[in-house]
Amino acid sequence: MKKLWGGRFTKTAEEWVDEFGASISFDQELVMEDIEGSMAHVQMLASTGILSQEEAATIKSGLIKLQQKAENHELQFSVSNEDIHMNLESMLIAEIGPVGGKLHTGRSRNDQVATDMHLYLRNRTEEVIALIAEMQNALLQKASDHVETIFPGYTHLQRAQPVSFAHHLMAYFWMLERDKERFKESFKRINKSPLGAGALAGTTFPIDRELSAELLGFSSIYENSLDAVSDRDFIVEFLSNSSMLMMHLSRLGEEIILWCSREFQFIELDDAFSTGSSIMPQKKNPDMAELIRGKTGRVYGNLFGLLTVLKGLPLAYNKDMQEDKEGMFDTVKTITGSLKIFTGMISTLKVKSTEMKKAVTSDFSNATELADYLASKGMPFRDAHEVVGHLVLACIQKDCYLADLTLDEFQSASGLFEEDIYKALDPYTAVARRNSAGGTGFAQVEAAIAKAKTLLEN
Amino acid sequence: MKKLWGGRFTKTAEEWVDEFGASISFDQELVMEDIEGSMAHVQMLASTGILSQEEAATIKSGLIKLQQKAENHELQFSVSNEDIHMNLESMLIAEIGPVGGKLHTGRSRNDQVATDMHLYLRNRTEEVIALIAEMQNALLQKASDHVETIFPGYTHLQRAQPVSFAHHLMAYFWMLERDKERFKESFKRINKSPLGAGALAGTTFPIDRELSAELLGFSSIYENSLDAVSDRDFIVEFLSNSSMLMMHLSRLGEEIILWCSREFQFIELDDAFSTGSSIMPQKKNPDMAELIRGKTGRVYGNLFGLLTVLKGLPLAYNKDMQEDKEGMFDTVKTITGSLKIFTGMISTLKVKSTEMKKAVTSDFSNATELADYLASKGMPFRDAHEVVGHLVLACIQKDCYLADLTLDEFQSASGLFEEDIYKALDPYTAVARRNSAGGTGFAQVEAAIAKAKTLLEN
Amino acid sequence: MKKLWGGRFTKTAEEWVDEFGASISFDQELVMEDIEGSMAHVQMLASTGILSQEEAATIKSGLIKLQQKAENHELQFSVSNEDIHMNLESMLIAEIGPVGGKLHTGRSRNDQVATDMHLYLRNRTEEVIALIAEMQNALLQKASDHVETIFPGYTHLQRAQPVSFAHHLMAYFWMLERDKERFKESFKRINKSPLGAGALAGTTFPIDRELSAELLGFSSIYENSLDAVSDRDFIVEFLSNSSMLMMHLSRLGEEIILWCSREFQFIELDDAFSTGSSIMPQKKNPDMAELIRGKTGRVYGNLFGLLTVLKGLPLAYNKDMQEDKEGMFDTVKTITGSLKIFTGMISTLKVKSTEMKKAVTSDFSNATELADYLASKGMPFRDAHEVVGHLVLACIQKDCYLADLTLDEFQSASGLFEEDIYKALDPYTAVARRNSAGGTGFAQVEAAIAKAKTLLEN
Amino acid sequence: MKKLWGGRFTKTAEEWVDEFGASISFDQELVMEDIEGSMAHVQMLASTGILSQEEAATIKSGLIKLQQKAENHELQFSVSNEDIHMNLESMLIAEIGPVGGKLHTGRSRNDQVATDMHLYLRNRTEEVIALIAEMQNALLQKASDHVETIFPGYTHLQRAQPVSFAHHLMAYFWMLERDKERFKESFKRINKSPLGAGALAGTTFPIDRELSAELLGFSSIYENSLDAVSDRDFIVEFLSNSSMLMMHLSRLGEEIILWCSREFQFIELDDAFSTGSSIMPQKKNPDMAELIRGKTGRVYGNLFGLLTVLKGLPLAYNKDMQEDKEGMFDTVKTITGSLKIFTGMISTLKVKSTEMKKAVTSDFSNATELADYLASKGMPFRDAHEVVGHLVLACIQKDCYLADLTLDEFQSASGLFEEDIYKALDPYTAVARRNSAGGTGFAQVEAAIAKAKTLLEN
Repeated sequence: MKKLWGGRFTKTAEEWVDEFGASISFDQELVMEDIEGSMAHVQMLASTGILSQEEAATIKSGLIKLQQKAENHELQFSVSNEDIHMNLESMLIAEIGPVGGKLHTGRSRNDQVATDMHLYLRNRTEEVIALIAEMQNALLQKASDHVETIFPGYTHLQRAQPVSFAHHLMAYFWMLERDKERFKESFKRINKSPLGAGALAGTTFPIDRELSAELLGFSSIYENSLDAVSDRDFIVEFLSNSSMLMMHLSRLGEEIILWCSREFQFIELDDAFSTGSSIMPQKKNPDMAELIRGKTGRVYGNLFGLLTVLKGLPLAYNKDMQEDKEGMFDTVKTITGSLKIFTGMISTLKVKSTEMKKAVTSDFSNATELADYLASKGMPFRDAHEVVGHLVLACIQKDCYLADLTLDEFQSASGLFEEDIYKALDPYTAVARRNSAGGTGFAQVEAAIAKAKTLLEN
Repeated sequence: MKKLWGGRFTKTAEEWVDEFGASISFDQELVMEDIEGSMAHVQMLASTGILSQEEAATIKSGLIKLQQKAENHELQFSVSNEDIHMNLESMLIAEIGPVGGKLHTGRSRNDQVATDMHLYLRNRTEEVIALIAEMQNALLQKASDHVETIFPGYTHLQRAQPVSFAHHLMAYFWMLERDKERFKESFKRINKSPLGAGALAGTTFPIDRELSAELLGFSSIYENSLDAVSDRDFIVEFLSNSSMLMMHLSRLGEEIILWCSREFQFIELDDAFSTGSSIMPQKKNPDMAELIRGKTGRVYGNLFGLLTVLKGLPLAYNKDMQEDKEGMFDTVKTITGSLKIFTGMISTLKVKSTEMKKAVTSDFSNATELADYLASKGMPFRDAHEVVGHLVLACIQKDCYLADLTLDEFQSASGLFEEDIYKALDPYTAVARRNSAGGTGFAQVEAAIAKAKTLLEN
Repeated sequence: MKKLWGGRFTKTAEEWVDEFGASISFDQELVMEDIEGSMAHVQMLASTGILSQEEAATIKSGLIKLQQKAENHELQFSVSNEDIHMNLESMLIAEIGPVGGKLHTGRSRNDQVATDMHLYLRNRTEEVIALIAEMQNALLQKASDHVETIFPGYTHLQRAQPVSFAHHLMAYFWMLERDKERFKESFKRINKSPLGAGALAGTTFPIDRELSAELLGFSSIYENSLDAVSDRDFIVEFLSNSSMLMMHLSRLGEEIILWCSREFQFIELDDAFSTGSSIMPQKKNPDMAELIRGKTGRVYGNLFGLLTVLKGLPLAYNKDMQEDKEGMFDTVKTITGSLKIFTGMISTLKVKSTEMKKAVTSDFSNATELADYLASKGMPFRDAHEVVGHLVLACIQKDCYLADLTLDEFQSASGLFEEDIYKALDPYTAVARRNSAGGTGFAQVEAAIAKAKTLLEN
Repeated sequence: MKKLWGGRFTKTAEEWVDEFGASISFDQELVMEDIEGSMAHVQMLASTGILSQEEAATIKSGLIKLQQKAENHELQFSVSNEDIHMNLESMLIAEIGPVGGKLHTGRSRNDQVATDMHLYLRNRTEEVIALIAEMQNALLQKASDHVETIFPGYTHLQRAQPVSFAHHLMAYFWMLERDKERFKESFKRINKSPLGAGALAGTTFPIDRELSAELLGFSSIYENSLDAVSDRDFIVEFLSNSSMLMMHLSRLGEEIILWCSREFQFIELDDAFSTGSSIMPQKKNPDMAELIRGKTGRVYGNLFGLLTVLKGLPLAYNKDMQEDKEGMFDTVKTITGSLKIFTGMISTLKVKSTEMKKAVTSDFSNATELADYLASKGMPFRDAHEVVGHLVLACIQKDCYLADLTLDEFQSASGLFEEDIYKALDPYTAVARRNSAGGTGFAQVEAAIAKAKTLLEN
């Protein structure tokens, strides 16, 4: 065979082709799930009398041995056994003899691998949900400390109106809450048993799918055997939910990077989450925020990879579907790591409230307040705007801000101005007054934090 | 200005730049939602005393006029008014005078456009859910007629085991059921009111966000004003759900294309969903199935486009977000059209059950049944496999199939064969016997159809 | 038929299905190319004697009339004629009678549409290349004015080393140069004639493909008829090149947005490319930079959409391929518009060199220079680092920068310091000294600008 | 620190955060390139007198030792040294003492990693180009054997016109030729040296970038240091070219899967590239074709991942860019493996020409020939169509094909039919007559093969 396509290939054709087609190099990640699924399957086979109690007991004891070896990393997988299922089957037979072959009765690799994937993703989804809650908690703790810390709110990356820093952090709390909701909702589609669907059509053995599902903690079974073995929606959904989660982290990451810059300098990251420089003590690269912003691409790519794989695939199982795994494993690793990093990064970051305060008092973002002040005293809004416009211009010419003007200067612009104008110009007042539901007013922010705490505790 | 970047540009700089930045060419799609949002807003402003009853009444009457004109396609939008919001505001003022300007009290374009999008997608999501149910119904009807129509089940596009055609169709029923579930679950995140979040920070006016939300039929309000104006998750989620739906349609589309081919010839499409040829009466291109398979790319692209837009965007509103609309509109149009087409295509397709039957009796897909037969009579499975292997080989040499062998020929291979072997080889028997839960056995298929009907009716 | 899938559909089945399948609503964009292709085809048919000179003359006169009408926007397209090709054919017959039908001799819609697409994209690619050159020119002009304008160079969005602003702008010049290269290289695959490939297999008519290709200005013909009608690589390649271009614009867009922020305030955009605010004269939203950063998503989505469409498509033409057009048209519109906007935006932006200067003198980014200074005087680098580290710390405690230290203070840290240390600390010196090839040293930047000018002129 | 974000994390914060941020687990793939780059750098440092000859000699000897260890897989990388560059530097110092630290003079990790990537991709691109040529050769060989093997050509997966199997295979030859062109064109952007660009701004050392570039075999140097360290276009371009290549393979893969099906049965794959079944000798799953069709998704995903990473990144280096590697490595592995598999699969596949022949004689795809026959005898085409339509209908009623009709039957339909009609109906004639340039006519196919051979040999 070697001759046929040239001397470039040093291995014999069969070997490298087999290696290209084998999945054991990555699907060994499913080792515990595969054994777990087999344990339930054999118990069902015994309950229904398809296998004898003795056969089942022997098989179980073999599976338990494999489980222990797996935990101790003592299993040696081989490419010649192609995938995790056949590796474990051959190991089982090596442990307990030919009876091990009976484990596969009434089962096919098609429903077996689907079962493994469901078990795997169920466990990881639970972990992800818990990690999101931890990150929410970190946001909540930090927000609790900074209800009255004021900094600029932006639109178009232009300062728009001052806001409570807690309010800003809490925006991410609610994004994560939606992420959690989506992962939770996807759970019922993940926690569904394909076991017993056979290769595609079901089986002639009198199996009890409800029983094996129950043993595995699945809340329901697939209603259609063809669908059971060819469905990968639950993985796409996981990747889609993960993409949205990463999108949220990339947004916060971008902000953290901005806030750490010399120009913004609103926060300082803990050393554990940044890279310092030996001679420039003030320099700290927000490496982790950048890296995770970058990892968004990887997760998006995994989503689109799988959507592409599945496009136009006829029923039922096709080998293309072997491509469902690596992107999923990689995404699990990426999002759990990213959530942990963000949780730590937020918990430990130092808020430079002095710099933040300086920012909101050294610009014209309180010009709106001035106009509101005049309007509330009865001046038509258009006229108020004009008055304010002139005052801003005057400040720019004098190189000062609105709060630096004297009362005389204010009053020469309009007789409506009184001493309380300075209070109105104070960003603190500006924030406090935006007390509409969900607004940045301190009372609103306190209430939102309380509500979020209750939500998180339940 | 023209000189600065050359004679290539025929319009003055300002005009073509404005045109590039304006959204009115596509966001006019939101005209009814924008008016609906304004109606609720003005009523709230009156209830809270922010506007007088008279002012509110005048504004409402103006809005009603605009609504009527919109329904009659009498509104003339202009690029100089940039977007749907400013177009309508200027039309309102033209209708009722300066008081129209008061409609915008306590509101910003940022929360206004978000409100429009939520209203728009809520209505379309309800439509999509209804259309999915109609397609499920078409599948169910067709399946009901073909429980006992047998055709090859495939893995790897190789014939694997015969299955009920109804069972195959029903696999798509369950895929669509998941699609429906996802759209329904996303509903609570779509049906949420951002109105009153202001530009980003809430407002100083004593608005009542709960009231305007209630008037618009929203089930809850956004808890955080920054999140309210910068969240586009609900659109990403819609695009993701749509991508999975299209993926399912692309899979069925692929199968329909295969089934219509000369080689498979399992079905015949109605003329309305195919393109015929005047001189080749047997030729019909399954155009619609192909087109919709192709349109999967468009919807995937829309999803990926929006995920890219949102990646790394700092809070709150950024102009990038204007790019959230066209992909959404296009996706709504694509999936509603595709669902209707598939519903019609399935309802009207003719099943060529004779050809299907011919297929399952002219191959060796019943070889498994033969081995099962011997195994059930006590022959060890490995030995049974070997016997069957020899028989298949014998058939190939004689250019016949297993069912064509005489009883003598069977018995000379193994004394366990008896007259009932012919029944076992019958694909009908093979299908009937796969009666495990969710399997292709007729009893299972009947039960699944009944269950699906109940599900659809509730 | 209507009854079959319910009352939801107000049009008769046939009509809305036809509308869904028809491409005339968007492929009318190809009207001029379609006529151009037909002109060449008919001339070839006459040259080869397939049509008589008279027939050809009549057809040509008809095509010329259609061309004029198209230019005057007088053509009325109809959905019942499905696509641009059949619309024009029917209009031609209406113009000149049944002989119009002969135009289609030796041609199929499959090679015809491919020809149109090649012509279309050839013209647009030339336009794109010219627009890139114009934007490069704008960068070059602006860079020429700012060789000695110094501002912070960043890594990790942390100030790293001061650089020439011209050097920074020129980085984009070279990115665009690669974009131009790629578009140019793709040209030979775009400028290739599929005309004469027939439906898929060629034709029995004695056509002359070289001649029609030559008439259309194509530089070569497709070598294989199946490939000619099923190849859409040239569009994918265009979309990929466009994606990279947009990626570059998004990077510059991001920087412009940063530079316009209150925190950076390095530039000021011309009013034409930003949105102002009536009462906050200092506020200008960099709308166009944001919008184009956002439009990156759209172009990425178009690329991914087409890649998805083509994945796994068997030869030759499939209806899925109708989906190749809208994404291409949209991309052409997006990138030509974006290039024009950026050209204008760069040409007109004001560089705030004072603010830039202030930035590079108010941080510790010259600490490296200090260490280099000591090292150049013979101090081992590790020791130099340590000395500098202490000095930086001292500055931070005193709330000053390195250049603010007295010579005494320097000398008490190390006897190697002399009066010229102040020159070394000057960012101007720091920039000037980085004179390695391609570095930010002024001499290098001047040379690079000169080289770029020559490149652009040729 | 551990307490801050909970007991879930078993490692100390620092350790797992470091692990998350470290790239050594994957960038060790660059070990040879990193050493190669260092060898050139040190030689340049010596030539320019920046290092002494002795220092350089010592460093080189150390690098050679590391090279040998790398070849023997004796290097032990550690996470604490973060990446391949710092791992090797620390190993070098361990080998040769502190002088090893001087290797980094005039270089930064930013230009170093870019250099490694360019070297890596240059080598792999050459390999990919060679592998494409091998696959083209396999196609060419197979095509040479099957010029006169006729089988159905399809549009819409409906049989359209018979074509030469060689012609069909050659369509893929030309697709691959474009792939090769693109990889070759990208080469000049890959084979460009960023070495000496420093961290972002160049260096103050009198380095000679041209020299180090020449030593590394680069054909040019980056003109701009900021661009040099922040450019990842060359990787995006590689991924885009790879995506198109995979798209082509997915199309051929789809066809191979179809051809292997029981319904088409046009080819038989060699056992090495398919999975058999012990009891169904006729069954062979085209596993490799499916798997590679599936792997298209992975490569698309890698492309979109990187495009996402780069979107909106400000200059110069950002940690996000660390995400450029794994997708590139994975793509290299995927496409080289896929090309080898396809080369082997095509070389060894058996063409079932009898089945192919049967296909083209058992349908109505020769109806066009019949109409052409009548037209060539002077019957107006429309009338010819009608005559043929009736004959086809008659055949369908009689359950036969056109060639089965007697001459009497033909002549009763039209007096123009003569004995030679049977020749015209022969698919061989139909193929032979499509002799336009690039058509399926045998002479054309022979000429195309000859041309392709010449192309491949040069």
